[in-house]
Amino acid sequence: MLRAMVRERRLGPPATKGISSAARVLDDWYVAAQSQEVGRKPIARTILGIPLVLYRGDDGVSALLDRCPHRNVPLSLGRVEQGTLQCGYHGWRFDGSGACVEVPGLCGAGNKGTGRRVDAFPTREEDGFIWVYATAGPRPERDPYRFPHLRDPAYTTVRQTLDVDGTLHAAAENALDVLHTHFLHRGLFRSEGERNEIEVVVRRWPDRVEAQYIGEPRPEGLIGRVLAPGGGVVEHYDRFLLPCIAQVEYRLGDDAHIIASTALTPIADLRTRMFGVVTFRLRRLPPRVGGLAARVLKPLGMVILRQDAAMLAQQTRTIRHFGGEQYFSTEVDVLGPQILRLLRRAERGGRTESSEGPVEKTLRMRV
Amino acid sequence: MLRAMVRERRLGPPATKGISSAARVLDDWYVAAQSQEVGRKPIARTILGIPLVLYRGDDGVSALLDRCPHRNVPLSLGRVEQGTLQCGYHGWRFDGSGACVEVPGLCGAGNKGTGRRVDAFPTREEDGFIWVYATAGPRPERDPYRFPHLRDPAYTTVRQTLDVDGTLHAAAENALDVLHTHFLHRGLFRSEGERNEIEVVVRRWPDRVEAQYIGEPRPEGLIGRVLAPGGGVVEHYDRFLLPCIAQVEYRLGDDAHIIASTALTPIADLRTRMFGVVTFRLRRLPPRVGGLAARVLKPLGMVILRQDAAMLAQQTRTIRHFGGEQYFSTEVDVLGPQILRLLRRAERGGRTESSEGPVEKTLRMRV
Amino acid sequence: MLRAMVRERRLGPPATKGISSAARVLDDWYVAAQSQEVGRKPIARTILGIPLVLYRGDDGVSALLDRCPHRNVPLSLGRVEQGTLQCGYHGWRFDGSGACVEVPGLCGAGNKGTGRRVDAFPTREEDGFIWVYATAGPRPERDPYRFPHLRDPAYTTVRQTLDVDGTLHAAAENALDVLHTHFLHRGLFRSEGERNEIEVVVRRWPDRVEAQYIGEPRPEGLIGRVLAPGGGVVEHYDRFLLPCIAQVEYRLGDDAHIIASTALTPIADLRTRMFGVVTFRLRRLPPRVGGLAARVLKPLGMVILRQDAAMLAQQTRTIRHFGGEQYFSTEVDVLGPQILRLLRRAERGGRTESSEGPVEKTLRMRV
Repeated sequence: MLRAMVRERRLGPPATKGISSAARVLDDWYVAAQSQEVGRKPIARTILGIPLVLYRGDDGVSALLDRCPHRNVPLSLGRVEQGTLQCGYHGWRFDGSGACVEVPGLCGAGNKGTGRRVDAFPTREEDGFIWVYATAGPRPERDPYRFPHLRDPAYTTVRQTLDVDGTLHAAAENALDVLHTHFLHRGLFRSEGERNEIEVVVRRWPDRVEAQYIGEPRPEGLIGRVLAPGGGVVEHYDRFLLPCIAQVEYRLGDDAHIIASTALTPIADLRTRMFGVVTFRLRRLPPRVGGLAARVLKPLGMVILRQDAAMLAQQTRTIRHFGGEQYFSTEVDVLGPQILRLLRRAERGGRTESSEGPVEKTLRMRV
Repeated sequence: MLRAMVRERRLGPPATKGISSAARVLDDWYVAAQSQEVGRKPIARTILGIPLVLYRGDDGVSALLDRCPHRNVPLSLGRVEQGTLQCGYHGWRFDGSGACVEVPGLCGAGNKGTGRRVDAFPTREEDGFIWVYATAGPRPERDPYRFPHLRDPAYTTVRQTLDVDGTLHAAAENALDVLHTHFLHRGLFRSEGERNEIEVVVRRWPDRVEAQYIGEPRPEGLIGRVLAPGGGVVEHYDRFLLPCIAQVEYRLGDDAHIIASTALTPIADLRTRMFGVVTFRLRRLPPRVGGLAARVLKPLGMVILRQDAAMLAQQTRTIRHFGGEQYFSTEVDVLGPQILRLLRRAERGGRTESSEGPVEKTLRMRV
Repeated sequence: MLRAMVRERRLGPPATKGISSAARVLDDWYVAAQSQEVGRKPIARTILGIPLVLYRGDDGVSALLDRCPHRNVPLSLGRVEQGTLQCGYHGWRFDGSGACVEVPGLCGAGNKGTGRRVDAFPTREEDGFIWVYATAGPRPERDPYRFPHLRDPAYTTVRQTLDVDGTLHAAAENALDVLHTHFLHRGLFRSEGERNEIEVVVRRWPDRVEAQYIGEPRPEGLIGRVLAPGGGVVEHYDRFLLPCIAQVEYRLGDDAHIIASTALTPIADLRTRMFGVVTFRLRRLPPRVGGLAARVLKPLGMVILRQDAAMLAQQTRTIRHFGGEQYFSTEVDVLGPQILRLLRRAERGGRTESSEGPVEKTLRMRV
């Protein structure tokens, strides 16, 4: 169909530089699905705009480009036959390496393979997640991220999946940002009324960045009161690890240790799937209070997630309308600019997994 | 997300020159909202593709670009605090001039302003409308249009707002066109059967154009019969005033004087908001007939507006499909080409608000 | 409205060459509608992206470009007056040749015609269909296709119209493809279990291509069992005739003769309307079995059509997402590549309606 060649004109305000926070780090692992989602029935998933079919065959879970090379229908419409993936249109079959092993209808030996193949992406099944490497080809040297304390019996883990409109960067900055909690999550977490000036130490490694908040009193909102009714000072770290992990760690003395990690999977430049993993130990809480905490915290967590998702969607809508981003940061945008720097460098292939110590910087912030 | 790079091909019919009736006159006033729409809760409005937030703060109603310079979320999601507009994400606050007056979290004096600002557009509240000047910056010399007889106690005013698909030009031409009424509004206004040849005088000024219809008998449709049961000859003017006023004036002797003005606000090239203001005096009608007229005319008016809106939407859909307009006008398209000429010149900045008398032209038409 | 200037980036997999199966053969006839759809009320139809209005006036059914030259509204919103098509906006009237015969409002002789016209497309009404030639202008020498046995009293004809997402080529290849029936229509037609190796003769003419399947046993699926309970060998031809006819012919001895023709009308590059005409004679079937056959076959046929339409939609969605097609064919893709070759040559104007005998090629296939 003809597309309207509507005369394009610029808005009055100055043009932007495009969606500059969209990053395509292709040489790394992302969570494609939860393990339980991948049975014998193939499923379609998209990572960085690449349509994939995931299925559980002879070689465990495989990930192929979701397009049959024959007539370009999605292979995810097919089924698993003889441990291979069979296209639902003409029955071409592919193994986990992407090689075509049968073309029904061809005579003699011809129907066994044709030299034709479909791109296969490395996969790993770990901690209840299917990780996929975003570049087709051989198994890479790099390993996927492992979530801490996930197999530690003293810890409990809760999982939650949510799609948001926004770049991976926007979702990560939101997840790790302290200062929006006073406004967007008014009353739930931190309150605007009584701020305290605290110290923040930012540590940068070649593949991750961390902010440590020193001297923060227990947040006065509902969540803080439930978790630590006695008040006190919290130990608090926010971290981003390339290419996709946003992690918040809280420790209230020996009372509570909470690690909220989110594996961020870029579905497309402006759409991100969040696989949340909250692992916690509430050791010294009396059982009655612990039970109350869990009953209160889960719905509160969902309220906060929905507030964040709604704001990210509005941010993305605005960015789309203006044709790109035009951010202005200050010193207290502690991690956002650092995350973007990491993503940009990784996108250009300039990342090194160095073991050298971090570069540190200290600043002050009112929280 | 990847966009389909579908091979584009032209239709069989000759290509058009694009949406040539879309005009972006930025250095003038448009109605952005009715006064009653703007309370303390900020609202979002769009003029000429520019997203604006309107709110009532310390300086009356202000209009800012609807994008926080910090993280690009709509400021219209925020709220009015201390007479300023506070962003709903991180709480940055802006005054009516667009200056940032607080960045929460920053320490010391740093949190008071940062030199950062958001574009502010001049506003005027008059006659129950919020007018906005479509270019950010200082208050302009030009004044917004004032509706006639709006504060005259002998007159009654009815208002109506309606969005239509179409350029400002298409909506204005439709509002001021006589000859479509026989067909699109068949039976309601003028009737095809008994046409009369009348004289039309077209007067052009540098910033407006007017058509005077001389010798037109009272229209035979339902509306004419209700307004002037006794028949007679009507005095009838159609006017367009830059940048956005379409006005129809009818006078039936001393019986009735009706001025139907529409302030046309271009939301986007192909979407226009119509703020209708019908001001009338039905002096010599007996009260019973006057009441009947009002009861009959209001729903009839809505029927006509909906017929116009539906036709404009179909016209716009066709123009989009063909990639632009390809109009063929005749002498009896009295105002459409003149309106376009005015808009085009104003768009190029070549308008002068001259007080010199008009250029006149006379033609004949069968109505 | 401003369009988002989202930064475009390519998927990981190699780029495609675009929608290379979309063909625009403009100098030929297509079915635009069923005869019964065109009464005195004008209707809108689209062929090859060209919006048309069809109406029944003084000259039979006419097809005009569906855009009034005056203000570009669809003429299909108008009505038939005095045997001509009258626009619903300002009442301009056009005859079947596209000439404007009245501009209401113009004075004197001026309102009779203005030299202005709208493109008129040749039409033919035959076999219950309205055929339209896809290029405006004089009546062409070429005739539309005539469906075989349509007026033969020994035959029964059933019609069915269906829109599918996909190019004309994709719809034609699907309609004429044998090997997808084992998978997409599993159990209904052919079965995967017991294949037989048969001979296929492919015959190519300058304006059509035919595949004859020799030695194919009666298909084992439900449809074969209903049509030919006694088994046997079927005589089977698949044909494509430029520009738009896909035809499957089955003969089971003297028991049954079935010709399923589909006139494929490209609405747009990726949308095709299928006018199906199934003409059959089930001579020697006992009446009870014949009635059973009809009762079973009609809903079965619809199931098959819906499976095909769903697969074509998925194929088209994938092609859109990847920005084009990337097909890999084998020897048993008997007709698809040949149909594309015919369409491509016809699109470039290189077709000749030759009476010379066909070029033959033989291959073997397991069905």
